[in-house]
Amino acid sequence: MMQVPLAVGSLMEHAERFFPKKEVISQTHDKLHRLRYGEIGQRTRRLMSILNELGIQHGDRVGTLAWNHHRHLEIYFAAPGMGAVLHTINIRLSPEDIIYIINHAEDKILFIDEDILPLIEHIHTHLKTVEAYVVMTDKADLPETTIKPLYSYEELLSTGDPTYHFKTDMDENDAAGLCYTSATTGKPKGVVYSHRAIVLHSLALGLADTAAISESDVSMPVVPQFHVNAWGTPFACTWFGTTQVLPGPRFTPKRLAEFIERFKVTITAGVPTIWLGLLRELEQGSYDTSSLRAVLCGGSAAPLGLIKAFEEKHNIPFYHAYGATETTPLVTLSRLKSYQQNLSKDEKLKERARQGILVPGLQMKVVGDDGEVEWNGKEMGELLLRGPWIASEYYKDNRSADTFKDGWFHTGDVVTVDEEGTIKIVDRTKDLIKSGGEWISSVEIENAIMAHDAVFEASVVAISDDKWQERPIACVVLHEGMEEKLTKEDLLEFLKPQFPKWWLPDDVLFITEIPKSSVGKFLKRELREQIKSQLSTQG
Amino acid sequence: MMQVPLAVGSLMEHAERFFPKKEVISQTHDKLHRLRYGEIGQRTRRLMSILNELGIQHGDRVGTLAWNHHRHLEIYFAAPGMGAVLHTINIRLSPEDIIYIINHAEDKILFIDEDILPLIEHIHTHLKTVEAYVVMTDKADLPETTIKPLYSYEELLSTGDPTYHFKTDMDENDAAGLCYTSATTGKPKGVVYSHRAIVLHSLALGLADTAAISESDVSMPVVPQFHVNAWGTPFACTWFGTTQVLPGPRFTPKRLAEFIERFKVTITAGVPTIWLGLLRELEQGSYDTSSLRAVLCGGSAAPLGLIKAFEEKHNIPFYHAYGATETTPLVTLSRLKSYQQNLSKDEKLKERARQGILVPGLQMKVVGDDGEVEWNGKEMGELLLRGPWIASEYYKDNRSADTFKDGWFHTGDVVTVDEEGTIKIVDRTKDLIKSGGEWISSVEIENAIMAHDAVFEASVVAISDDKWQERPIACVVLHEGMEEKLTKEDLLEFLKPQFPKWWLPDDVLFITEIPKSSVGKFLKRELREQIKSQLSTQG
Repeated sequence: MMQVPLAVGSLMEHAERFFPKKEVISQTHDKLHRLRYGEIGQRTRRLMSILNELGIQHGDRVGTLAWNHHRHLEIYFAAPGMGAVLHTINIRLSPEDIIYIINHAEDKILFIDEDILPLIEHIHTHLKTVEAYVVMTDKADLPETTIKPLYSYEELLSTGDPTYHFKTDMDENDAAGLCYTSATTGKPKGVVYSHRAIVLHSLALGLADTAAISESDVSMPVVPQFHVNAWGTPFACTWFGTTQVLPGPRFTPKRLAEFIERFKVTITAGVPTIWLGLLRELEQGSYDTSSLRAVLCGGSAAPLGLIKAFEEKHNIPFYHAYGATETTPLVTLSRLKSYQQNLSKDEKLKERARQGILVPGLQMKVVGDDGEVEWNGKEMGELLLRGPWIASEYYKDNRSADTFKDGWFHTGDVVTVDEEGTIKIVDRTKDLIKSGGEWISSVEIENAIMAHDAVFEASVVAISDDKWQERPIACVVLHEGMEEKLTKEDLLEFLKPQFPKWWLPDDVLFITEIPKSSVGKFLKRELREQIKSQLSTQG
Repeated sequence: MMQVPLAVGSLMEHAERFFPKKEVISQTHDKLHRLRYGEIGQRTRRLMSILNELGIQHGDRVGTLAWNHHRHLEIYFAAPGMGAVLHTINIRLSPEDIIYIINHAEDKILFIDEDILPLIEHIHTHLKTVEAYVVMTDKADLPETTIKPLYSYEELLSTGDPTYHFKTDMDENDAAGLCYTSATTGKPKGVVYSHRAIVLHSLALGLADTAAISESDVSMPVVPQFHVNAWGTPFACTWFGTTQVLPGPRFTPKRLAEFIERFKVTITAGVPTIWLGLLRELEQGSYDTSSLRAVLCGGSAAPLGLIKAFEEKHNIPFYHAYGATETTPLVTLSRLKSYQQNLSKDEKLKERARQGILVPGLQMKVVGDDGEVEWNGKEMGELLLRGPWIASEYYKDNRSADTFKDGWFHTGDVVTVDEEGTIKIVDRTKDLIKSGGEWISSVEIENAIMAHDAVFEASVVAISDDKWQERPIACVVLHEGMEEKLTKEDLLEFLKPQFPKWWLPDDVLFITEIPKSSVGKFLKRELREQIKSQLSTQG
């Protein structure tokens, strides 16, 4: 067989040749753009020639601090398309972390949205390797700044070469992308995506039994392009000629709902927090969401109530997925097997609330204290992963050895696996609660609490206990107007039939908000600190 | 990212773990078997251990002369699964060709169906490298023979090790399969499939926009397992947990129709001849074919009338595909783009009768006398292909250089490409008719003739002409009962409005059968010989 490398640039070439008329609809700070893949391809080629002129060489890192829009999409292909590395930076991190990341990655050029410019003005003197800044606007919109050298994206593009060639003859194991993930302790850790990984992962996203991304879809990624490449959807959607709707900077649930109706979005992806927000919007407004065939939800476990609300109230198919920055990210997706279609409505929903089965192409192993656990839906163990789109290390980071051992990625997620091979995340290894020598899953109690109609969100954390070692405490945010209508006793009564007695939280604290990370995950460490002070005040 | 090779064995491992309850339904000479992937996996492991015991080593060729059934499926995974090479041999070739192929491939062991045994008895003294023969039956059914050493498949399996491990750490470019293709001149030519090619091709078959093979499908490959691995469907279907229906030896259209109804087949694949036969059966009998969501047709161009009959008379979606032994084989598939759904019924049908657009992962180029042709649906050129599941050479064959040039596989197929990138095969380079310095597509005239209700099949070939260099002659087989109801003049009158005058055949010969190759393709070379003698007799 021919030795043809899997190359990210060839995905855009395919779109240009076979789907030149299909559209990318993109919201930027000033307006809505509609471009065809024919144009996007040419603009990407112009951008590659500009990167080349600016001295970017094979393997150099090209940083982006940007929202979801077409210019960001163009860099997605231009950087790896000319041999460089696309480095998407999470704009929600602290300035210190952003400085660390840019210096650690040794970014040579930064592409930034104009609303990010104040941040960069604040930190740019600390950036050691950046040689040029590009603001992703027209020249006319270029804000005044002292940063130098600084270019307008559109002005640069106007001088680019629309016939510049994609580089598709590199080693497919060469770096194409880079993304940093927050660490529980210490600075963020970088994950390098190879061309091979991105192309294989794109194929995985197109499989009929996973996300089934198709030319006939209209995809709106709500998950940011700076978070694991918007879960790889821009790569797959471009390759397959899918219409893309990129919702731009600082979108609201209202904009999302409007875009779904207006552009007949068929598939969208994001974290539970986003879908909770959209759900509120759908319940307040009146939107036609009948085009939606799939809402993909990942990042953290979706409460059963959320799935139920989408599926039963709004008739929107809701798919639970699981992955991580280290896994490109798709690992599992909750789709029923054909013979599971015979289950009762409740059983189906329960099955769908799990994280699903492994995507073809990966290998998994669930390891407890005594080796691999049985697939009986009960035994808990840490999920270990292996495969061509699973990281083998953190980028230049000596913490790699803690996570990548014996050829496996140790996810830190505790799961059960049932007879069907369906995994269910029960906790993070570090969030499991050990009470009297037995494990309690904080996530299972959270999900049960969140299934209560009055509850908006909930988090369960461990506090240390002299007798039992650790005990669970529930922190609960109620829906607006529900305050004082649900008592601690009511809630414990509600939980009682669902769990062994010793799983029930020792206390329930009603709070106004659960602290979240930049990507919407519960920050249990912060919550534990908060509780400690609250409990000691009470005490 | 991890360096994990794409390995054929891991596909069966995935099926064993995630789809152990799903079934393979298999017809053998004596009965219908129903096995689950759990069992198929264990039997494959037993078989690997047996191959190992019989001395098969990494890279050794394991030959099969067998129909579509579960034992053949097990060897599909056992041979590459233990590091050897699955060599499927076309049982319809001449004994001379089969001897050549086995000796050229240096097969070390042969797995044969019991009805093939007489052939092997006839030729086995000529086989230079075969050390063992396995007849794919129970011991009780083992026919008497003088061939030695000869084993019963089931007896061997009973002593195998069901815990034997799949080898998944080889170089993914290592050979996993081997298949010979007939050559126009000379002996058959071998194509080696790597693990990488088979795994990537399987992903391509699972894409929502290609065959979309899914766990929820019931797949019945009618294309033989000895013909380009039944178009790769056994690999993809096993991986994705698809129910497989393998129709066994010497099936009839009646058996196919019955199996479709009985097992609720959703997807099936084969050459036009098969579908012409099935169509007749569907029109004679009364079958429920409502489960079918896709009939894939490849190998040679399907006449418009065939597509129309399936889609309009029987409401069965019919997909035209294109590929070759050298291409693993999927290259294009005719699926309408979303915006083409607005075309009229006739325009849609016309579009669907083309071979479709390129599958993601491959590259194509269409080259005429003056370089790459324009994509305007008119200019003709030879189709050139490149990609990770396209062959780079014939196995140990000095004819390779004629076909593999400058990094491209020269298909020998002449195509046009329209603005959508949809290819249409207009001819084989060697079957194009050159009349008065202009090209005439024999395939286009054939399709037009076959659209006539009275016509069963038709082939158009060139005869040499003093004045025009070459002129087309049509050879036509009429439907039963239609003989003498359609004259040469009627047919030419029917064609007249559809073509330029100089494209019209100089003569129409009514014949009883068109000579076909072992895989159902028209043998135009033989037909030309036949005509020559017929015309000279007439003259």
